[in-house]
Amino acid sequence: MKKIKVGIVGYGNLGKGLEKNIKDNDDFELIGIFSRRDPKKLDTSSPSFSYDDLNKFKGKIDVLMLCGSSAAGVFEQTIELAKDFNTVDVFDTHAKIPEYFKKVDAVNKENKTLSVISTGWDPGLFSINRALAEAVLPKGETYTFWGKGVSQGHSNAIRKIDGVLNAIQYTIPVKENLGKIRSGEKLQLTTREKHTRLCYVVADDKADKAEIESKIKTMPNYFSDYDTTVKFISEEELERDHSGMPHGGHVIRNGQTGDDNNEIYDFSLSLDSNPEFTSSVMIAYARACAKMHEEGHFGAYSVLDIPVAKLLNKSRDELIKMI
Amino acid sequence: MKKIKVGIVGYGNLGKGLEKNIKDNDDFELIGIFSRRDPKKLDTSSPSFSYDDLNKFKGKIDVLMLCGSSAAGVFEQTIELAKDFNTVDVFDTHAKIPEYFKKVDAVNKENKTLSVISTGWDPGLFSINRALAEAVLPKGETYTFWGKGVSQGHSNAIRKIDGVLNAIQYTIPVKENLGKIRSGEKLQLTTREKHTRLCYVVADDKADKAEIESKIKTMPNYFSDYDTTVKFISEEELERDHSGMPHGGHVIRNGQTGDDNNEIYDFSLSLDSNPEFTSSVMIAYARACAKMHEEGHFGAYSVLDIPVAKLLNKSRDELIKMI
Repeated sequence: MKKIKVGIVGYGNLGKGLEKNIKDNDDFELIGIFSRRDPKKLDTSSPSFSYDDLNKFKGKIDVLMLCGSSAAGVFEQTIELAKDFNTVDVFDTHAKIPEYFKKVDAVNKENKTLSVISTGWDPGLFSINRALAEAVLPKGETYTFWGKGVSQGHSNAIRKIDGVLNAIQYTIPVKENLGKIRSGEKLQLTTREKHTRLCYVVADDKADKAEIESKIKTMPNYFSDYDTTVKFISEEELERDHSGMPHGGHVIRNGQTGDDNNEIYDFSLSLDSNPEFTSSVMIAYARACAKMHEEGHFGAYSVLDIPVAKLLNKSRDELIKMI
Repeated sequence: MKKIKVGIVGYGNLGKGLEKNIKDNDDFELIGIFSRRDPKKLDTSSPSFSYDDLNKFKGKIDVLMLCGSSAAGVFEQTIELAKDFNTVDVFDTHAKIPEYFKKVDAVNKENKTLSVISTGWDPGLFSINRALAEAVLPKGETYTFWGKGVSQGHSNAIRKIDGVLNAIQYTIPVKENLGKIRSGEKLQLTTREKHTRLCYVVADDKADKAEIESKIKTMPNYFSDYDTTVKFISEEELERDHSGMPHGGHVIRNGQTGDDNNEIYDFSLSLDSNPEFTSSVMIAYARACAKMHEEGHFGAYSVLDIPVAKLLNKSRDELIKMI
């Protein structure tokens, strides 16, 4: 069978995860890594090219896998690249997804390309589970918990404080309340009752640690609504103990059927490597993207629009046996 | 919006669950319950009709919801009814699903009807999760555990033993091994190491209980490969303590990405009422069935072929907001 030819756009943690995981999917062929940095300086043995040379690959790549974060401008990038390529991305600014979907869809339809937007695990697998849980249990309450895991956004927010040299922030579910929800209780939980935040901070020797701690704990949106713990450590400790990127979480729906029978739907992920797992999910959706475009479809698709059968490298007979 | 008109075929636990749950889905209208028993004698306030009158409802029902078990001949029933109706069923003999799918699909295509086969939770939601987990974690091991829950098949097998008046059998995961798997361990488990079987038996006063116990424990396929416990109780105790129909289980995939990072995918259900939850899943797939037929599709579909978006009573804009 013809291989699915893909390009990786961006070579951070996610791009590196893709590069590794593509090797475990023998229906894929990596055409190249495209970076805004000097491609000769990327630490990779895969073919690497300048982002500006992407236009030379039109027609030679089935799916571009966009590794840019929402913060790094993947919104505009997808709209630009979807003119010439099918794309899969991990756009994760939930509030902007409706606008993003519409704009990408318009570009796709004009250019007969296909984009799968907002893959990964949240949005992504968690979105599927929130929707599926509500579909099969229309009466009930859905809860999402994240962690224990590193939040890049929160880590970055700490790093911007004067006197902070480096920082890692873990989002941690409040164990007692998570346990109650997983046991089927239906609680109204505040932000503070769902998650705590744990910050490891490397401070400049001359910095006022008490002031840094106060600035973190009172930071609106990021920390002020949470019970936050700040621990000062050395750069060596940060490197040694906190360079992993674990994450995970839970989508739980506690529903009722009939005469108040309780039914608990619980989807959980526990991930050693957030970027590697996210990239593995992207690969499954890149497969679907290539298949559906080959079948003559175009336009923007979300994870809610794609049947599971499209995600697997299996024949129809093999799929039916999986039921 | 036009309501989805459905008929319930069969009025056992599943049919009763459907009747209750349809009331919580205001896009549905129950046209009637169809039974091989005297429809006047059914304990229901819903319209009820003889199974033999189904032919009068052709064109008046969007989806027939078939509640027959695999053992009760739903295979042949679907093939017959799919000539005139769209159908949703819970056919659950895994080994026969490929043959079933092909035969139903042929009838659908000849008659421009649409059937969603083998819905419910296993097959059904568990099938989706086994497939999705493998798609996003191609390297790994998938484990399915069932229970604690009542197995009708095993309960019936006990009831056929001479001297047994009634019986309920619970399938129970081996807690220690389930715990290890949920923590990410990859174990090769035998049948005995995955589940135990607990039997509550009402015996005739004159029966030899030791002999009944021995017959249960040595029964091939059903019990001989398991650690089985047999407890004799009275009919009153059985009625009082074991008339619920709880069930549930776990689909777990312990996978690796990149350089042997472990990623745990865990989907779990804990159900007070197996038939009510199963019927609630059927309703979501009946919605998809009606939508897709309305869109001009026909043929047989499995749960792997249907995007989550089709299962919900939501507009396109509402769906995108769920991502």
